Amino acid sequence: MKLTELAFHVNGEVKGDAEKKIDSVASISRARENSLTFFVKNRAVGDLRNTKAGVVLLTPEFSEQCECNRIVVDDPYAAFAKVARLLHPHPSVVSGIHASAIVSDSAEIAATASIGPLCVVGNNTVIGERVMLGAHCAIGANVTIGDDSRLHDRITICSDSVIGQRCEIMPGVVIGGDGFGYAEDDGKWLKIPQLGRVVIGDDVDIGANTTIDRAALDDTSIGDGVKLDNQIQIAHNVQIGEHTIMAGCTAVAGSASIGKRCRFGGHASILGQLEIVDDVYVNATSVVTRSIKTAGIYSSAIAVQENNRWQKVAGRLHRLNELAERVHKLEKQILVNQAQENQTLENQASGQQSGE
Amino acid sequence: MKLTELAFHVNGEVKGDAEKKIDSVASISRARENSLTFFVKNRAVGDLRNTKAGVVLLTPEFSEQCECNRIVVDDPYAAFAKVARLLHPHPSVVSGIHASAIVSDSAEIAATASIGPLCVVGNNTVIGERVMLGAHCAIGANVTIGDDSRLHDRITICSDSVIGQRCEIMPGVVIGGDGFGYAEDDGKWLKIPQLGRVVIGDDVDIGANTTIDRAALDDTSIGDGVKLDNQIQIAHNVQIGEHTIMAGCTAVAGSASIGKRCRFGGHASILGQLEIVDDVYVNATSVVTRSIKTAGIYSSAIAVQENNRWQKVAGRLHRLNELAERVHKLEKQILVNQAQENQTLENQASGQQSGE
Amino acid sequence: MKLTELAFHVNGEVKGDAEKKIDSVASISRARENSLTFFVKNRAVGDLRNTKAGVVLLTPEFSEQCECNRIVVDDPYAAFAKVARLLHPHPSVVSGIHASAIVSDSAEIAATASIGPLCVVGNNTVIGERVMLGAHCAIGANVTIGDDSRLHDRITICSDSVIGQRCEIMPGVVIGGDGFGYAEDDGKWLKIPQLGRVVIGDDVDIGANTTIDRAALDDTSIGDGVKLDNQIQIAHNVQIGEHTIMAGCTAVAGSASIGKRCRFGGHASILGQLEIVDDVYVNATSVVTRSIKTAGIYSSAIAVQENNRWQKVAGRLHRLNELAERVHKLEKQILVNQAQENQTLENQASGQQSGE
Repeated sequence: MKLTELAFHVNGEVKGDAEKKIDSVASISRARENSLTFFVKNRAVGDLRNTKAGVVLLTPEFSEQCECNRIVVDDPYAAFAKVARLLHPHPSVVSGIHASAIVSDSAEIAATASIGPLCVVGNNTVIGERVMLGAHCAIGANVTIGDDSRLHDRITICSDSVIGQRCEIMPGVVIGGDGFGYAEDDGKWLKIPQLGRVVIGDDVDIGANTTIDRAALDDTSIGDGVKLDNQIQIAHNVQIGEHTIMAGCTAVAGSASIGKRCRFGGHASILGQLEIVDDVYVNATSVVTRSIKTAGIYSSAIAVQENNRWQKVAGRLHRLNELAERVHKLEKQILVNQAQENQTLENQASGQQSGE
Repeated sequence: MKLTELAFHVNGEVKGDAEKKIDSVASISRARENSLTFFVKNRAVGDLRNTKAGVVLLTPEFSEQCECNRIVVDDPYAAFAKVARLLHPHPSVVSGIHASAIVSDSAEIAATASIGPLCVVGNNTVIGERVMLGAHCAIGANVTIGDDSRLHDRITICSDSVIGQRCEIMPGVVIGGDGFGYAEDDGKWLKIPQLGRVVIGDDVDIGANTTIDRAALDDTSIGDGVKLDNQIQIAHNVQIGEHTIMAGCTAVAGSASIGKRCRFGGHASILGQLEIVDDVYVNATSVVTRSIKTAGIYSSAIAVQENNRWQKVAGRLHRLNELAERVHKLEKQILVNQAQENQTLENQASGQQSGE
Repeated sequence: MKLTELAFHVNGEVKGDAEKKIDSVASISRARENSLTFFVKNRAVGDLRNTKAGVVLLTPEFSEQCECNRIVVDDPYAAFAKVARLLHPHPSVVSGIHASAIVSDSAEIAATASIGPLCVVGNNTVIGERVMLGAHCAIGANVTIGDDSRLHDRITICSDSVIGQRCEIMPGVVIGGDGFGYAEDDGKWLKIPQLGRVVIGDDVDIGANTTIDRAALDDTSIGDGVKLDNQIQIAHNVQIGEHTIMAGCTAVAGSASIGKRCRFGGHASILGQLEIVDDVYVNATSVVTRSIKTAGIYSSAIAVQENNRWQKVAGRLHRLNELAERVHKLEKQILVNQAQENQTLENQASGQQSGE
């Protein structure tokens, strides 16, 4: 593709050889003659100067720092996302059902869909146009998968689940497993049958080995445009609003309701039965134990220290209540001393008077 | 089913139309004419008044708050668990081995068992009556699976594992993978062969993508009635006592021994080589680093704060040892001052005396 | 095997019946006549005295504590690892491609490799000598798997990945899933195509359900001899140096670079875009938020306390900044008081003088 064409797609301006042809993207250090790269703030400007890339996407402020061809855009990272997909489209998939797949007669599979080897598709399941299922997927009964969704290898979608359009799901994901609900009954745990569904909107991405449980009743619901990283756990009856994004290993407990456009760092924990409003950012490893009612950034992460030092801190932390009480006692003591001192000064003053 | 029949199963008393027929369960807000729901304390009484349910399970104290049919019971949640299973039994499974499954000639499969499509069953493995294996299960050699256990799709049970009766295992679970044991040898890691087993009792439930490692020697052991949520990690040689329950993403390190009837919140961490007695409850995200010898509730969870505020707290925390030392110094100083002050007062007294 | 032979393999010295034959290993309490066990410091010496083992591996200092046969070595645990593998070699695998496997015509499979039932192998993939693939593995296109690597059941290796020699990979692992990279674009998330690879060295072990994402560009790289436990998450572009070891459920965020011979306890979190030098040990559940530039042990783990006590500590922690400010105020106050006191003493001295 010529630079002019690329620039057109990202609404950018070419500086340099507009006829130059590009066939791939690469990192700034590995980019070669025929590849495009990008440069964003906070990266080393030296890399920009030394790059051998055929063209660099960058903002106006860095445009003069580079002698190679460039396409000037407002947001080089977003522009890169668009160009990278243009130059590296999804591998084309062959329509049709692989001979080794086991598909129920009552399933409705669009003619343009691709059902991979050794897939199993249950009764009354509906699979939309251009849907891709990789190898070893198991799709239960009464499932709906919207047009253009891409399910990679070895994905389990349990019965009654609804997957929207243009979703992308990585291997090992389990959608619609039973939620974790038990009643105590005479010293034993009695399972609450999990009879609800998982409903996933459009344009949702789900990372490898993530699990999303079906609701006890009603729906576990993942809004349009939500992006979930690997090994995330979404418990039953959770609601996640549109365009919320979660990094790896985050866990959300039952019936939590999370707003739109929220962001969660990795290994975060959201406890159950609480509500988080829109536009809340939670830092990595932080723990949400109560509802968050105001948009903003929240954290409870504790960074490592050298171990000997940390052991002392941790020991002190465990006695923090006593420390606070000691401070309180000091405050009272100092007030007493002050009063006493004032008395002394008064005495002194009167003593001096009387002594004069 | 008539209300009288349902009431009989849960040892409850019908108030209203005992002949009323019910065919499903639903949440209190979505329940309709023909559905049963339940009401427990701490929920909004308004929901109870407004429900359109055919019948509500509730305790005597709420019986008069509702004009619809009701079944009065001691524990509505446990009663709901029982009724829900009555009205929504497990889907019936067809006995027999799917034509696409690959089963060793030396495996013993009960005639009433159901082996799903594309399963693989190893040598000398014994599968009990009415056992269900979903699609894509891989059961190794010398495995035993007890009667009435239900293994959903895509479950791996490695060789020599023992699974009890009436267990329910969700997709993606791996039981009997090698434990993580290495000896250091000349700057490299030498794997300790993992030669033990996993032994799982009766009535154990295991959530999606949970992993339970085989012991190095002897057994990793999960007691009767244990309930494990999704993405839990149980390391080699761990022992878990009967009826203990663990929420999602909890991790238990090697050789930990956990008592009966314990409860673990989600994302908890239990370190290795320690012992936890019976009836210990550990809150979500908490970290057990040493043996717990007394039943009770334990925690080390830290809830999020607004980030700017938290950053100050975290900074102070890292200097907590110094803060404690400063308090100690103040305490000494205040004693010195006190002594000095007392001296001054004495001086003053004697000065006044001498000045008189 | 005779004790003399075993001793030869571990460079040890037999004390007792050198002709004695051993056929298995066992734990010290369960070992019998024909089995070998080991004894290391910190274990109960009583177990050593009472063992019924045919032979015990131990250090010279314990050699006289036991009446049974023994092999004296410097490092009994490493010696045990070697002997255990000798006595319990990997089960032999039948070379060849299982009739149910679906292998691309363009894949190159070594004649000595074993491709298990229902595996899928993609185009142009190269599988080395004596490689074992268990059941249900899905190996994408253009993958390389080195000689003698053992992939157990149900493993997904996405396209373009490189796996070294003598690796061992447990069930449920996903290697080469898309990294988690998005650009914000007009309130939505735009996926950055993940076009890089995963490159895994020789002698790497990977535990059940662990996930390792492909790089956005370039490589995610796992060095020779690295050992990863279960349910570990390695994000895109991460680099892990040789012989580093990580316990279960540890998560490493994007572009983190980790040195050689590092050790990570379980449930640790390493944030992205940072560097950790060689020989860093991070304790379980600890959180690395910034680069670590000095070898050593680091921690931020907080152990549980009894819950009522902890709730007070946690409340105090949230007000730690205020506590520190109160201490600061006390320090100032005490200086003022001191000054005042000194003034009083001076006054007193001069008052006494004037009063004399």
